[in-house]
Amino acid sequence: MRVYDIILKKRNGEKLTREEIEYMIMGYVKGEIPDYQMSAFLMAIYFQHLDEEETYFFTETMMRSGETLDLSSIPGKKVDKHSTGGVGDKTTLVVAPLVASCGVTVAKMSGRALGHTGGTIDKLESIPGFRTSLSFEEFISNVKKHGIAVVGQTGELVPADKKIYALRDATATVDEVSLIASSIMSKKLAGGSDAFVLDVKFGSGAFMKSKEKAKELAKMMVNIGKLHGKRTVAILSSMDQPLGRMVGNSLEVIEAIEALKGKGPEDLTELSLCLASYMLYLAGVSDLKDAERILRSKIESGEALEKFREMIEAQGGDARIIEDHSLLPISKNVEEVLSDKEGFVEKMDTEKIGVASMVLGAGRKKKEDEIDHSVGVEVLKKLGDRVSKGEPLVKLYCSEKSDVETAKKLIKSAYSISEQPLEEEFKLIHEVIE
Amino acid sequence: MRVYDIILKKRNGEKLTREEIEYMIMGYVKGEIPDYQMSAFLMAIYFQHLDEEETYFFTETMMRSGETLDLSSIPGKKVDKHSTGGVGDKTTLVVAPLVASCGVTVAKMSGRALGHTGGTIDKLESIPGFRTSLSFEEFISNVKKHGIAVVGQTGELVPADKKIYALRDATATVDEVSLIASSIMSKKLAGGSDAFVLDVKFGSGAFMKSKEKAKELAKMMVNIGKLHGKRTVAILSSMDQPLGRMVGNSLEVIEAIEALKGKGPEDLTELSLCLASYMLYLAGVSDLKDAERILRSKIESGEALEKFREMIEAQGGDARIIEDHSLLPISKNVEEVLSDKEGFVEKMDTEKIGVASMVLGAGRKKKEDEIDHSVGVEVLKKLGDRVSKGEPLVKLYCSEKSDVETAKKLIKSAYSISEQPLEEEFKLIHEVIE
Repeated sequence: MRVYDIILKKRNGEKLTREEIEYMIMGYVKGEIPDYQMSAFLMAIYFQHLDEEETYFFTETMMRSGETLDLSSIPGKKVDKHSTGGVGDKTTLVVAPLVASCGVTVAKMSGRALGHTGGTIDKLESIPGFRTSLSFEEFISNVKKHGIAVVGQTGELVPADKKIYALRDATATVDEVSLIASSIMSKKLAGGSDAFVLDVKFGSGAFMKSKEKAKELAKMMVNIGKLHGKRTVAILSSMDQPLGRMVGNSLEVIEAIEALKGKGPEDLTELSLCLASYMLYLAGVSDLKDAERILRSKIESGEALEKFREMIEAQGGDARIIEDHSLLPISKNVEEVLSDKEGFVEKMDTEKIGVASMVLGAGRKKKEDEIDHSVGVEVLKKLGDRVSKGEPLVKLYCSEKSDVETAKKLIKSAYSISEQPLEEEFKLIHEVIE
Repeated sequence: MRVYDIILKKRNGEKLTREEIEYMIMGYVKGEIPDYQMSAFLMAIYFQHLDEEETYFFTETMMRSGETLDLSSIPGKKVDKHSTGGVGDKTTLVVAPLVASCGVTVAKMSGRALGHTGGTIDKLESIPGFRTSLSFEEFISNVKKHGIAVVGQTGELVPADKKIYALRDATATVDEVSLIASSIMSKKLAGGSDAFVLDVKFGSGAFMKSKEKAKELAKMMVNIGKLHGKRTVAILSSMDQPLGRMVGNSLEVIEAIEALKGKGPEDLTELSLCLASYMLYLAGVSDLKDAERILRSKIESGEALEKFREMIEAQGGDARIIEDHSLLPISKNVEEVLSDKEGFVEKMDTEKIGVASMVLGAGRKKKEDEIDHSVGVEVLKKLGDRVSKGEPLVKLYCSEKSDVETAKKLIKSAYSISEQPLEEEFKLIHEVIE
């Protein structure tokens, strides 16, 4: 087998064998295949794609390139949830304790903020004392004892993805569906859960702007999960506006707590209940039709919030933040961005709102950047809302380091205000792919 | 300007500016842009191509990446000739002295054998004592004194092409017309001649198997030449059979001498006269309709052969080889490959004949390989020829190191013999692109 011939074969649109894909990925991870051949190969894949079977082989090889977590010592079905990333998406903070309170075991690894999107780990770290970096043993022990743990990546999972992603990021080959699907699924599969609920987002605040592309990605990931013998469901949800009203770390923790109390914004609650229902269903805890009723009862009884408290305490955090939000770092330096038009919010460039939050300090442009848990954006006006001239569109929570001027410009250009009310109501959940 | 954005732009099929192309090529030559970004960029070009203007910018930047020869101290118009490579193509050995004998100044740099194709420099080096490596001063002085010099590459011409070609060769991006055109033309232009006659070959023994692709390449190269203010003509010629009968270094020198005496094979003479006519025409020495008559008179008078002798002597070679071929290294170990069928030669896989010559030792698989000037293939049967069972198809001139068995297998599989005579006669020159 020669690297050259494999590049040529894919370039010419031919289908690769399992052995050829393994040869490329493992050779690259071991440093036997140079970057320049891998990047040409990835560009050839960008143009010629990988079919379902090739994507399955690609994912499997990546998954097996490093450690994989063995959760078999934990009783019950472990269900993981993944979001492709959005703005104001704090569903993990709601869904994880909620399903855990119903008896679903949650052994979850989450990511950090990058670019216009936030990350669960950063949000949790805004809780004073909260530790997201546990040893594997402590992680397993927490899950066994409390039925829940949410941590940053533990161990050397999927080194192939790390190395290949860095190369794609430098060579304009990130946005190829088969490569995205195998990147996400290899990490999910290495995490060791038995089933997966995927929140695949599309629209102005998502990586996939078009619903069709997002659907293609969702189908591919569901298929990869199934080929690996794992029950997998994907929810197609719209990111044409931020989820909820809060964007930023501490701000989102507060909104998640509100949702766990049953007082959260409607859209956040709707998406959380949908994702949680499928998690209950895949875990075998409930059938689909009863799931929402069970979930709502756990919110009403306070058990969901208590599970969140239990997790915070188990991971060393100060759980008093649940009652006393002032214990969370929240900036007092607040500025409003006012509308210069009267009318109705017709469109929101949600990515710009995410970037605005980033430039305030809530996110990272590069992996190495530090973040500020106290800053962010409170979205006062959403799609279809009536706005008067001079009325505030958002509140910006700023620090001394925040680039407030850029944030203001981004917010202004993110909103489109029309004279007419919207003809169609915003639809959050578009499709479920099983 | 960011490398990433330029890769992305080309990947998305957008047109690059002169500045962007310069940024990529010069950044790469200086080592500021890593191989992996360049190889992804080249693969994107493979799929999205470069248009005429982009190819012009690409060529110009490559040309200016190193030294360029200044031939202005030599009086008269310097006309260069280039072949895209074939099997048995010894036209430079015929054409260069022939046009020099008519008063066209030939200051020519030629290449070496690689893969299934031969190289003029290797052929000349089979003449005992012949020096192909002259200093620039000696090269210029020879041209001034004799009107002719044929040498290997002198100076650091087009380092960008050297570096980019090596990368393309390792990443399956060689066969893209715009990249081939700029690779060839950047070197030709750096060579400093005033006009160019290009022999663009297609068919079973050429790099371009299809006539359409070869025509596309020819048009692109003629266009690049013109955009640089150089008169450029391309001849589309068929490589569906070897040119002449001899393939191999000493063997080809002998055949070229025969052609200079007016006793060469018809096809070699036809192509040589065509190329030489255009060289006379572009040099302003003759108009097109008189060129062939002038050329034939120089062959008949012996002046063309005398010019060849003058060049050999000027470059230190033993010119007695012209009369006494036994002074050339030619193997006495000759084997025949016999036909196992009766009929007519219907097709020749000419590349296989070139590879057969290479495995005998006349060519190189890799650049570092040494060659043997004494070996090669004498082609006894060509397209349309009648063959009896047991009659020899070719003679192999072998050395102790020759892989004779592989050569024999290649030759056998190269010939297709049909029961019917050919319906159409072989056509050598298909089109002239000006």
